[in-house]
Amino acid sequence: MIPDPARLERWIDTFARITESRTDPGVTRLAYTPLERDAHAVFAERMAELGATVWVDAAGNTYAQRPGTDPDRPAIGTGSHLDSVPNAGRFDGIAGVAAALETARLFAEHGVEHRHPIRFVVFAAEEGARFGQACTGSRIAAGLTGPDDLDDKRDAAGVTLAEALRGVGLDPARVASARWRREDWAAFVELHIEQGAVLESSHRRIGVVDTVSGSTRLRLDVTGRASHSGGTPMHLRADAVTAAAEVVLAVEAVATLTEREGTRATVGKIDVSPGSITTIAGAASLWVDVRDLDADRQARAAAEIVERAEAICARRGVRLCVRPLAETPPVPLSGPVREVLVEACRELDVEPAVLPSGASHDAQQVNTVTPTGMIFVPSKDGISHDPAEWTDVEDLALGTAVLAAGLLRLDATLR
Amino acid sequence: MIPDPARLERWIDTFARITESRTDPGVTRLAYTPLERDAHAVFAERMAELGATVWVDAAGNTYAQRPGTDPDRPAIGTGSHLDSVPNAGRFDGIAGVAAALETARLFAEHGVEHRHPIRFVVFAAEEGARFGQACTGSRIAAGLTGPDDLDDKRDAAGVTLAEALRGVGLDPARVASARWRREDWAAFVELHIEQGAVLESSHRRIGVVDTVSGSTRLRLDVTGRASHSGGTPMHLRADAVTAAAEVVLAVEAVATLTEREGTRATVGKIDVSPGSITTIAGAASLWVDVRDLDADRQARAAAEIVERAEAICARRGVRLCVRPLAETPPVPLSGPVREVLVEACRELDVEPAVLPSGASHDAQQVNTVTPTGMIFVPSKDGISHDPAEWTDVEDLALGTAVLAAGLLRLDATLR
Repeated sequence: MIPDPARLERWIDTFARITESRTDPGVTRLAYTPLERDAHAVFAERMAELGATVWVDAAGNTYAQRPGTDPDRPAIGTGSHLDSVPNAGRFDGIAGVAAALETARLFAEHGVEHRHPIRFVVFAAEEGARFGQACTGSRIAAGLTGPDDLDDKRDAAGVTLAEALRGVGLDPARVASARWRREDWAAFVELHIEQGAVLESSHRRIGVVDTVSGSTRLRLDVTGRASHSGGTPMHLRADAVTAAAEVVLAVEAVATLTEREGTRATVGKIDVSPGSITTIAGAASLWVDVRDLDADRQARAAAEIVERAEAICARRGVRLCVRPLAETPPVPLSGPVREVLVEACRELDVEPAVLPSGASHDAQQVNTVTPTGMIFVPSKDGISHDPAEWTDVEDLALGTAVLAAGLLRLDATLR
Repeated sequence: MIPDPARLERWIDTFARITESRTDPGVTRLAYTPLERDAHAVFAERMAELGATVWVDAAGNTYAQRPGTDPDRPAIGTGSHLDSVPNAGRFDGIAGVAAALETARLFAEHGVEHRHPIRFVVFAAEEGARFGQACTGSRIAAGLTGPDDLDDKRDAAGVTLAEALRGVGLDPARVASARWRREDWAAFVELHIEQGAVLESSHRRIGVVDTVSGSTRLRLDVTGRASHSGGTPMHLRADAVTAAAEVVLAVEAVATLTEREGTRATVGKIDVSPGSITTIAGAASLWVDVRDLDADRQARAAAEIVERAEAICARRGVRLCVRPLAETPPVPLSGPVREVLVEACRELDVEPAVLPSGASHDAQQVNTVTPTGMIFVPSKDGISHDPAEWTDVEDLALGTAVLAAGLLRLDATLR
């Protein structure tokens, strides 16, 4: 029962083609848009052809179930997401859905029997790019986001999450019905691309995740005084850009202190106003993301970034406004599920790397309801959230083999 | 013969209201647009009412002439511009045109006689915001820009300078006819806001300019590797933003070296791509403006900025591409005209600051044809190119008095 790389490649391609523009580079399929729904429908249709029972919950998560031989057992699940950031790659989320589709095909064609029902899941709205909040579909499934949380999160056009749900035919008032009950689930496994270069640089083809990083997100608004680049001597300036540049380097410095090995801090977005070559900037905004596997270290790093930014801005005579955007603690995934996945690798003669995930995932949300594990496949050059994102289809096929073997091992060993 | 602050204020207000939007902050009246032409038409109409002879040249510069008592004498000129950068203030350019209008009114109402004809001029397209090139109208007048230069400069929408001229009813093939002949001119004086805080911080109400800074403009494109902010450890990154931040601080450092007092170097615009909080930036572009009063020092500062940027990018493993955008040398204005303006100040019991101009001006272009001087009035907090740009109308009235007295002194003393 060997996954077929050509079929996996065809699924990757099928989903990558459902994108807003044929001319822009990469995939753009934002959360709770008709394009995301189209991709879910392709998944549902193929699963129905394979004989699975298919449904969509009130959060827009799509399910396909293969029945178990013991109808009273709770489900074992696997899946990922089909939405993307703007100008994304073709593997983030899609890889795990393609692996789920290929696993379902293998189980159907080989008439594989399992005691537990197996549920293949596509979560809605995993990327935070549109509404700021990541993993909305899986957070609703885990009971971490409820109907009252949908009116205050807005996209760049001012559309609320609740309005976006209604826009694609979902009823935001009903999202509580999408919450998972513990007794319905036995375990969950998500396959995902690493979105980093640890596997590649250590020459491993499979990773098994032990912990998912937490993330503290801040917006820092620096306000100086706009003035003419020629008319204003250096000592009379209140330049928002030079202050912001110093803060960017402080963010990097805080994360590269030796006692903070493991901390990752990034300024990925900068806005400068008015943004003219002949005007000293009056304002600059920085978006900061601090990730860590250790909650205390994460909090200390974020606090030190704010302290250093305050000192820099005070010294430079510009104002600083700090806005917390999001705060999620690190999440250790299930030890027993991890052990089963490591054994599944060894059964296939593969020694996996056991490693943390720097990115957040649906897996960490559903882990609060049912024991959850994650399989990583390598990302070429560690590139992700970019059209150049790439995973070799042979690695994805190996990951799918680990997924299928892991699901059957869980089925055999769970009480 | 005292300038009337209320009339000056009314002119400032009249011109400031001719703007693209009633809701956006500030004045937006780009070069060679119908709005710029509307503003010129208001000037021409009022000047005609005051009995001046009015015409527009092929570059779109508008002239209003009061005859001299000696018809064979060349003209003494004054004026400024009425176009603006986007979301500009209400004084840049406008102040000098308001002062010209008020001077013409005073001369008409008091029946002032002068030997030389006096020409009040509004130059077209002074701001480089639309086409990259500053002072297009005065450069054409000075013979520094000709008909062959109008096809390769384009605005953001791809419209060439030649097309923009045709769009407002001007004939680009005829611009050579707008070139000034040396024998037609005796001297020129421009009144302008300082666009800096040197007058304010030294408690002077009037400045007389000795030299106009040169400007070297560069675009620096930094290319790293986009990757996930969570998935990529600090030591595996090629972050375009941290490299760019270090370059911004190097630009500042180069200009604040003690041997470079007088050098002004600014990064006023930054673009980051893809610009997402969860993606390490794969690319960042910086726009750098280096100004100096000393041509050698300006060239050395620009070269050192490039050297430092190359070293920073090499050390950080990112690529750097340097594109020169523009290069203008510093321009010493006329010593004799400056002396006359200083004497005009003292006649009014005002001690002027003699200071350089950091910004470029039409005055430096026409100085290549006829001896030219500049009067500065203070800019509150040094702010310019911003809706908060402000000059007290009493200061503008005093500057207008210096202008009127200066023009009459030139008339009396020039041979």
